[in-house]
Amino acid sequence: MQVETVKIREFCHELFCAYGFSIEDSRIITDVLLRADLYGIESHGIHRLVRYHDEITSGQVDVKAKPEIVHETGISATIEAHKGMGQLVSVEAMKLAIQKAHNNGCGMVTVRNSNHYGIASYYTELAAAEDLIGVSMTNTEAICVPTFGSQAMTGTNALALAMPADPVTFSYDASTTVVPRGKLEVYRKNGLPLPDLWALDANGNPCSDAAVVVDNIINKAGGGIAPLGGIGTLHGGHKGYGLSIIVDLFSAVISGGLTSNHVNRQPAHTGICHYFMAIDYGIFGDKTAIKKSLSTFLQEIRDSKKAEGQRRIYTHGELEAELRAQRENVAIPVSEKTLLEMQNIANNFNINIEKSLTRSP
Amino acid sequence: MQVETVKIREFCHELFCAYGFSIEDSRIITDVLLRADLYGIESHGIHRLVRYHDEITSGQVDVKAKPEIVHETGISATIEAHKGMGQLVSVEAMKLAIQKAHNNGCGMVTVRNSNHYGIASYYTELAAAEDLIGVSMTNTEAICVPTFGSQAMTGTNALALAMPADPVTFSYDASTTVVPRGKLEVYRKNGLPLPDLWALDANGNPCSDAAVVVDNIINKAGGGIAPLGGIGTLHGGHKGYGLSIIVDLFSAVISGGLTSNHVNRQPAHTGICHYFMAIDYGIFGDKTAIKKSLSTFLQEIRDSKKAEGQRRIYTHGELEAELRAQRENVAIPVSEKTLLEMQNIANNFNINIEKSLTRSP
Repeated sequence: MQVETVKIREFCHELFCAYGFSIEDSRIITDVLLRADLYGIESHGIHRLVRYHDEITSGQVDVKAKPEIVHETGISATIEAHKGMGQLVSVEAMKLAIQKAHNNGCGMVTVRNSNHYGIASYYTELAAAEDLIGVSMTNTEAICVPTFGSQAMTGTNALALAMPADPVTFSYDASTTVVPRGKLEVYRKNGLPLPDLWALDANGNPCSDAAVVVDNIINKAGGGIAPLGGIGTLHGGHKGYGLSIIVDLFSAVISGGLTSNHVNRQPAHTGICHYFMAIDYGIFGDKTAIKKSLSTFLQEIRDSKKAEGQRRIYTHGELEAELRAQRENVAIPVSEKTLLEMQNIANNFNINIEKSLTRSP
Repeated sequence: MQVETVKIREFCHELFCAYGFSIEDSRIITDVLLRADLYGIESHGIHRLVRYHDEITSGQVDVKAKPEIVHETGISATIEAHKGMGQLVSVEAMKLAIQKAHNNGCGMVTVRNSNHYGIASYYTELAAAEDLIGVSMTNTEAICVPTFGSQAMTGTNALALAMPADPVTFSYDASTTVVPRGKLEVYRKNGLPLPDLWALDANGNPCSDAAVVVDNIINKAGGGIAPLGGIGTLHGGHKGYGLSIIVDLFSAVISGGLTSNHVNRQPAHTGICHYFMAIDYGIFGDKTAIKKSLSTFLQEIRDSKKAEGQRRIYTHGELEAELRAQRENVAIPVSEKTLLEMQNIANNFNINIEKSLTRSP
């Protein structure tokens, strides 16, 4: 069903305040969470609220954590997040990178010991809104099996980059796996066999049974998802595998944090790591001309000849911006299951969800 | 056949001197060229000499070009290559990035109006040899078709990153296409049908006929190679497509150069662009601990459980380092066709190739 955006925003804000976050912090967490729904990335939106609830109430997330800068230069910082909410330390980290970029041309901030941070493009677009190039990466619990392996060693390991362009910001945001775990869950739910390149069983063989793969992931029983490029090397799986290592390198290795294969291995501690970078592209030349060059290039791509049967070529961030414009002051789709989960969570806090949310579809 | 490495090095050096390059410049070009053969990346090695010969003699490469810094800050530079040999401006650009990283923590150098630069990892490994993280990218003539398109708009667009680790440097170097063009040529030669995800005909439909695709590429008749992830979105082709745009963004857009779709569209002018970055990872913390963390992570991956039937998991750069150690002071494989091309080129310059090269296999 459709729920009014302003109402669901109010509900989330009230809920995060009830967990003990400040008004300002609750506003930030809500904004990151709902941006995913506005962009049509349901896997990272309100659907995920129940997981945040579990992480906060189990102590994986420390509501009172204060991020600490443990190393800093004019163009860099390393932040120890002390198990704080991923969205909060990440906004702070990207703002620090942005400030350094404004002052010194670029800022690189690496973060250790954090938690899930939502959609990576939320942060890169903070930089783009300040007329900078933004980069953002995060590791996760291991789910991606290296080429020739049978055991997940890297995470979904998203990589995002945004740069301002007219009429729409270029905003790339993608995992370095062939598909995210949520996609396997959809195939399981619909009883469909997985494509050959996507997933591996515990022995490292291609596996088309989504239930087997997802259960193995949950039970850490081996196997998992292939890197971008798929299983083996024929379609370049070794490339996606390398990109997933690069994400761990910038988020976990240089921050002194936990690489994906060690994330979420202890009770009440995930150890997820992030990386943020902002670059003032004026350090390379005239910003107006550079931005125009990107805008022209993207327009040439969108205008290029379509494949038979296709009507449109998208550049990255375009579809998301259109969906957001449609949904921002209107409504977002929420599944019945998610609504029920929200109801259960609300009951813990005496929040009257029916009053604030319900709206005919 | 096998040719002694020292002999082929002497031959190339003599040849590049004969084109008019200085002794030092000829040494650099030769070193970049043969590093590809030492690494087993034959497509970018001595096999490519005939193409360099054509580019130099046709005037696409200006032997006398002097790269010019047109914009500079403490952490950045933009270089106009004036149609110089790609290898020469690239070594200069990466050395400048390295110097800035040593002085100010990081250096980013973007290069416009250059030519083919060989293997991307040659430059990232210059940074790694100085205990820095190195990044290198290059655009090329358009060969990669955007998702839902039928016309090549981005190039092979390699992306490389190296960082020191024990016992072997992590060195990622890969195109953002599902396969390089050379792979299609091998399938054509062997009369094999192309895998479904790799290539598109002029109407943007999957095409298994390598001859059709390669001829279309040569004649700029439409179609081309799919981005990493393959045709369509099922296996993440939109991700590889976005990565190829990112390579153009850093090499062509911020340098004020030509994006891939405009490269090689004029006689005697390619306009290829590159990007180089060096980061002193000591700006994030203790270098010994950070390097150890990367070494441990890579070792854990190599030691992780193998897929059924597989005996080894490689980390990036490992295989290349092993091949180089075998070949460096011994010999490299050269095809009969390449030897013939070398002979023809040598004849133009009175270089006695038989005296310097021939060795029983």
